[in-house]
Amino acid sequence: MNYRMIVFIMGQILRIVGLCMLLPILVGFYYGESHVISTFGIPALITLAISFAFTVKKPKNRSVYSMEGFISVAASWVAMSAIGALPFVISGEIPNYINALFETVSGFTTTGSTIMTDVEGMSRSCMLWRAFTHWLGGMGVLMFVLAVMNSNDVRTMHMMRAECAGPNVGRLVSKSSFSARILYVIYIAITLLEIIVLVILRMPLYDAVIHAFSSAGTGGFSLWNDSIAHYNSPAIEIAVAIFILLFGVNFNLYYFMALKKFSLVFKNEELRTYLGVIAGATGLIGISLVGHYGSVAESFRRTFFMVCSTITSTGFATTDTGEWNNFAQTLLVLLMFVGACAGSTGGGMKVSRILIIVKTGIRELKYIVSPRAVATVKMDGKPVEKDVIRGASNYFILFMLIYASSVLLLSFDTFSIEENISAVTTCMNNIGFGLGRLDTSGNFSEFSVFSKLVLCFDMLIGRLEIYPLILLFGIRRKY
Amino acid sequence: MNYRMIVFIMGQILRIVGLCMLLPILVGFYYGESHVISTFGIPALITLAISFAFTVKKPKNRSVYSMEGFISVAASWVAMSAIGALPFVISGEIPNYINALFETVSGFTTTGSTIMTDVEGMSRSCMLWRAFTHWLGGMGVLMFVLAVMNSNDVRTMHMMRAECAGPNVGRLVSKSSFSARILYVIYIAITLLEIIVLVILRMPLYDAVIHAFSSAGTGGFSLWNDSIAHYNSPAIEIAVAIFILLFGVNFNLYYFMALKKFSLVFKNEELRTYLGVIAGATGLIGISLVGHYGSVAESFRRTFFMVCSTITSTGFATTDTGEWNNFAQTLLVLLMFVGACAGSTGGGMKVSRILIIVKTGIRELKYIVSPRAVATVKMDGKPVEKDVIRGASNYFILFMLIYASSVLLLSFDTFSIEENISAVTTCMNNIGFGLGRLDTSGNFSEFSVFSKLVLCFDMLIGRLEIYPLILLFGIRRKY
Repeated sequence: MNYRMIVFIMGQILRIVGLCMLLPILVGFYYGESHVISTFGIPALITLAISFAFTVKKPKNRSVYSMEGFISVAASWVAMSAIGALPFVISGEIPNYINALFETVSGFTTTGSTIMTDVEGMSRSCMLWRAFTHWLGGMGVLMFVLAVMNSNDVRTMHMMRAECAGPNVGRLVSKSSFSARILYVIYIAITLLEIIVLVILRMPLYDAVIHAFSSAGTGGFSLWNDSIAHYNSPAIEIAVAIFILLFGVNFNLYYFMALKKFSLVFKNEELRTYLGVIAGATGLIGISLVGHYGSVAESFRRTFFMVCSTITSTGFATTDTGEWNNFAQTLLVLLMFVGACAGSTGGGMKVSRILIIVKTGIRELKYIVSPRAVATVKMDGKPVEKDVIRGASNYFILFMLIYASSVLLLSFDTFSIEENISAVTTCMNNIGFGLGRLDTSGNFSEFSVFSKLVLCFDMLIGRLEIYPLILLFGIRRKY
Repeated sequence: MNYRMIVFIMGQILRIVGLCMLLPILVGFYYGESHVISTFGIPALITLAISFAFTVKKPKNRSVYSMEGFISVAASWVAMSAIGALPFVISGEIPNYINALFETVSGFTTTGSTIMTDVEGMSRSCMLWRAFTHWLGGMGVLMFVLAVMNSNDVRTMHMMRAECAGPNVGRLVSKSSFSARILYVIYIAITLLEIIVLVILRMPLYDAVIHAFSSAGTGGFSLWNDSIAHYNSPAIEIAVAIFILLFGVNFNLYYFMALKKFSLVFKNEELRTYLGVIAGATGLIGISLVGHYGSVAESFRRTFFMVCSTITSTGFATTDTGEWNNFAQTLLVLLMFVGACAGSTGGGMKVSRILIIVKTGIRELKYIVSPRAVATVKMDGKPVEKDVIRGASNYFILFMLIYASSVLLLSFDTFSIEENISAVTTCMNNIGFGLGRLDTSGNFSEFSVFSKLVLCFDMLIGRLEIYPLILLFGIRRKY
């Protein structure tokens, strides 16, 4: 294994994280928060120093294979979470380091679960940093590195695969640095568009930035305890729902639209399924809640928002789903597992994986009946490669095995089995809220240190899709 | 498809069910229950009449392939449940037909869930029939047909596969009728042994028969509301635990032992894993409960019983696990999914399937690192065939998809999400008890008719391992 190159990549990722801390410093100055010099200045300097040490000597052997890609991404995510937690501890706004670490991992992985009981007391700079971790983690920090650096000389696809969500990454163009740049341009453009729309709908600029960051990463951190419900504005509710829906779409499709290759977009089976599931779930739940809300319009508006928030794994809330009927709640829980599209910032198992898994199940039934007939699994009209099918099935299996183990590890804590299941579901799918003591507000402060670390691991597993993390901890020795 | 042959096989299975109703009639006469003439006589005559009509003309074309095997087994199980429910309705002991159907499906599938709030008021003949459905369903009625008839002329392996549990059926000897006979001889022998042991431990003969039938099918029906706890006897508790553990072992291994091929038994990886999991779970839970019971011996005895009862999917109880700590309860829930060995009467996913799935997951990790290295999954030291691996993975996937759909269908009822999850878990794995309103007593009477039918389907899906049922309802049209 090329350890030198792993360290080099980590150094480059940490440099981005260090530089990103300049943003909350600027915001802090603007709002007259003098503590930002120590709160963010110290961690930024530490990060940049480590980055300098890691990158000062360029490795001679620059070959990067799957193993190096996975390990460097996993190690970087752990390192940037450990460092990203420092501002909360230094400012005293989250004095306990483990709590701050949980909050930061929840941020970078775009989960949106929190250990804070009252977020409204947070300083403006820390609040911005908290939401900014969502934005950075959504598209991925390594992606940013790739977008910035000219990577002609490095085989970077292996690294992109480690951080990008979904069963397979289609390279947009032949050079992956260019791919990464396109994706970030689209990402920044839609984020800016959301800020503008929210400001037009009379949300203050600062609030609009925070919520746009959270939406973009499909994270869920808000600056209000009652999330988007705070504004009590149907227009804002609908606008945010549409934007998180957009951030749950495969970004490659936006590039195709920019190139006017619309047929590729319309043919996309994952997109059609994603929109179909959202429409179907909104319809079914909306009808079931008309009596509850006493108004068809309100019922469908609130349902649409919560369906988009859940399937994209954002975790914003405008209503207390604990008051909804069992059917609506159960459907939401199932949507958590489905997740958004591959190649988006959304979490969950991803629509395309679920599609492949369901189709594989149907093929298995056909096989049982007539073993000689060769039935193929198709996506977008083309046969899916065997490796992709095997990958999707085995991803599902590994996901469930880690899921079960995590629930067992949490059982040493004081929460009920139901609450533990809910906590693991929300963390592994990067949603942000659960049931019971972990209702829509998604408060995890009462868990023990051990449980919090288990949940941090689950969030990272969910965001990086299992393999990098497993390879980083433990299994590595075998090879 | 050879419809004539499907009807013919159904007729043979129904004849066995009809003849089996003579047993409760005899028991009823012995205890002076005059109602048995109508209670069991009428259903027996109906069944035998249908059987006669179905078998009077032997089909010319006797070819049986997978499709015919699956369909005839699934249709027979539905038919014998529908008929087996009649005695409860006629005797008035379960007046509602849907309730009686649920009880009978729960019996034949060896689930052991009940809709009765007080079983102790049941007549002796009906109680015996209730437990006898466990015994018949445990090894399988079609298996009995195969054991009785001389099937030189029929390709019966396809049918055996449809009713036998686990990833693959190893033929014991070249003729499957002889295989079936060997399995039933072993089954009867261990059942008799359990009756003798329980009588020696001072359980009344009638009680011993009921509990031996329930143990043999790993079902869980008892004649007391408080199950095995009623006898308050550590010796009986340990004896029953050991017998259900034995009924959870692959019956082929007993045949190997009879042939003195002990090396085949000791090498068996599934058996070693099964015993290892039981020992491990008993150790961990037992230690965690020493404080609760205040005695090491009692803690381990009660734990051993509940672990055996849960992993084999029997569902007998000697203690209220609702009072146990979260860790113990969570581990029990996980054991429900693991299940017993393939080729046993136990439920769940089966130890060998879980083994293959875990090994496949590990192989996938190896593959991710170095795609060129061909890693094989091994069982008992030999590479597992690709078809078996694919089958195990896809079984898991189909299981989870049906699991999720069932929870959604139950959400129209009044139970909580947690209780619905618990109900589906216990039914699909054929356990018998759940959590919340479905605690150790496993009472399902409060569910709606629709929910009960969904749960009946789930129990059959669990017992027949998905494929036959899916092929019977719906998917069939496509071929």
